[in-house]
Amino acid sequence: MNGKEAAGRKAIDEISDGMTVGLGTGSTVYYFLQALAEKMADGLSVTGVATSEKTVALAKEWNIPMVSLNSVSRIDVTIDGADECDPSLDGIKGGGGALLYEKLVAKASEKRIWIVDDRKKVEQLGHFPLPVEVIPFGWKKVQALMENKQYHPALRRNETGEPFITDAGHYILDLHLEKIQNAAALADELDHVTGIVEHGLFVDMTDKVLIGYPDGHIETIART
Amino acid sequence: MNGKEAAGRKAIDEISDGMTVGLGTGSTVYYFLQALAEKMADGLSVTGVATSEKTVALAKEWNIPMVSLNSVSRIDVTIDGADECDPSLDGIKGGGGALLYEKLVAKASEKRIWIVDDRKKVEQLGHFPLPVEVIPFGWKKVQALMENKQYHPALRRNETGEPFITDAGHYILDLHLEKIQNAAALADELDHVTGIVEHGLFVDMTDKVLIGYPDGHIETIART
Repeated sequence: MNGKEAAGRKAIDEISDGMTVGLGTGSTVYYFLQALAEKMADGLSVTGVATSEKTVALAKEWNIPMVSLNSVSRIDVTIDGADECDPSLDGIKGGGGALLYEKLVAKASEKRIWIVDDRKKVEQLGHFPLPVEVIPFGWKKVQALMENKQYHPALRRNETGEPFITDAGHYILDLHLEKIQNAAALADELDHVTGIVEHGLFVDMTDKVLIGYPDGHIETIART
Repeated sequence: MNGKEAAGRKAIDEISDGMTVGLGTGSTVYYFLQALAEKMADGLSVTGVATSEKTVALAKEWNIPMVSLNSVSRIDVTIDGADECDPSLDGIKGGGGALLYEKLVAKASEKRIWIVDDRKKVEQLGHFPLPVEVIPFGWKKVQALMENKQYHPALRRNETGEPFITDAGHYILDLHLEKIQNAAALADELDHVTGIVEHGLFVDMTDKVLIGYPDGHIETIART
C-alpha cells in the first residue's frame, strides 16, 4: 500500500448510507472511488456529484450513481485530493486541471475532506505551481500581467503541444511562485483579475485532511 | 438622427490614422462602426480589436481589418456602449451579453470612451439589470446565493427559451437590483464569488462619455 491508497481507503469511514458525496479528481481520489464502489457492492447507497469528466467516467465504470451539481440541494461531504496542503489546511489544487469544478463543489459542501499522501504536506505553499484558469480570448493579457508581477506564468499544454483545455473550456496558466507568503492575500488579488476565472488556492475551505504514509498509517489534521 | 447615432458618429473624432482601436458591441457602436468604415473608405487606416463575434461579423462586412486581443501589444482607444452610466463615469454593461470580452478589451486599452444616448445617463446605477456571467456547471448555486442576498437573479434566455450562451460559453444571470448603493463594493463582492466569471459593473474603467441627444447635440463628460 502507498500513501495515496492509504488515505483514499481511509476516507470511506466518512461516508454514511444515503449521503450525497462530492467526488474529487485525481490519483488519490481514484483509491477512494475504488473503496466506495466496493462498499456499494456490499449495500451502501450514496449519490455522487463529480468534479470532472474524468471522475464521471470512473464513477460510471464502477456503477456509482451520479447527479449534477446543479441538481442537488446539498452535498453532505466532499472527498478530494490536493497538490499541497499547509498546517492551517490551506492548499493548492488544480494539478489535474479540475480546480474550477472542484472549488464549486467544495463551496456547495457541508464538509470538505482532503486525502493526500505525505509528500503533499508542506510548511509553506508555493513550491507546486499554482494553476490559474483563464479565458482563452484574453489569456496573453493575463500572462503579461502575471509576468509583470514576477509570478512566472507558463501556459499549460497537453502532450501534442496544444494548450490544455479545462472541462469548462478555459486555459490554465501555472504560476511558478516557489513561496507564497500570504495565501489569502494572493487569492484576493487573483479574484480581482479580469480574465482569471478561478485559481487553485483553497483558503479556509477544508475541514479535515487525511495524510497517508508509505507504511499505511494515517495522520489526521482537523480544522480547530 | 437619434441620440445613439449622434454619439456613435461623434466618436470618430477620437480616432487617428494608424491606431489600434477596441470595437465595442451594440446598437450605438453600430453607428460608430458605420462612420469608421466611411472614414476608412476615404483613406483612414486603423486596426480593430473586437469584443464579440457580432462585432467581428460587422467589421468584416465593412472591411475593417481585425486582429485578436491576444495578438496586440496595446490598444490605443476603445469605443464602446453602456447600458447605464452615472455622473462619476461608472456604469453597467452586458445587456448584449458581451461584458466579459468588453471588460478584457477595456482593461487592455490606453483610453476608454463610452458612447450612449441620453436615456443611459442615470443618477444612480441599478435600474438596468446587472448582468453576471456564470459557469454553467454550477450556475444554480450562484443563483441560490444571489437569491439569498436579495439580488433577484434571473437566468437570461434566448428566443427559444434556452439559456443564453455568451461567446465564451457561459450563462448570464441578470440581477434585478433597482438601486446599487455602492458600485465598487458590489463589484468587489461579486469578484469573490466562485462560479461568477465576470460582472457588468465597470468601475473606474472609463475616461470619457459621449452622450447623444435626440436633437443631435452631444454632451461630453470626461474623468477629471
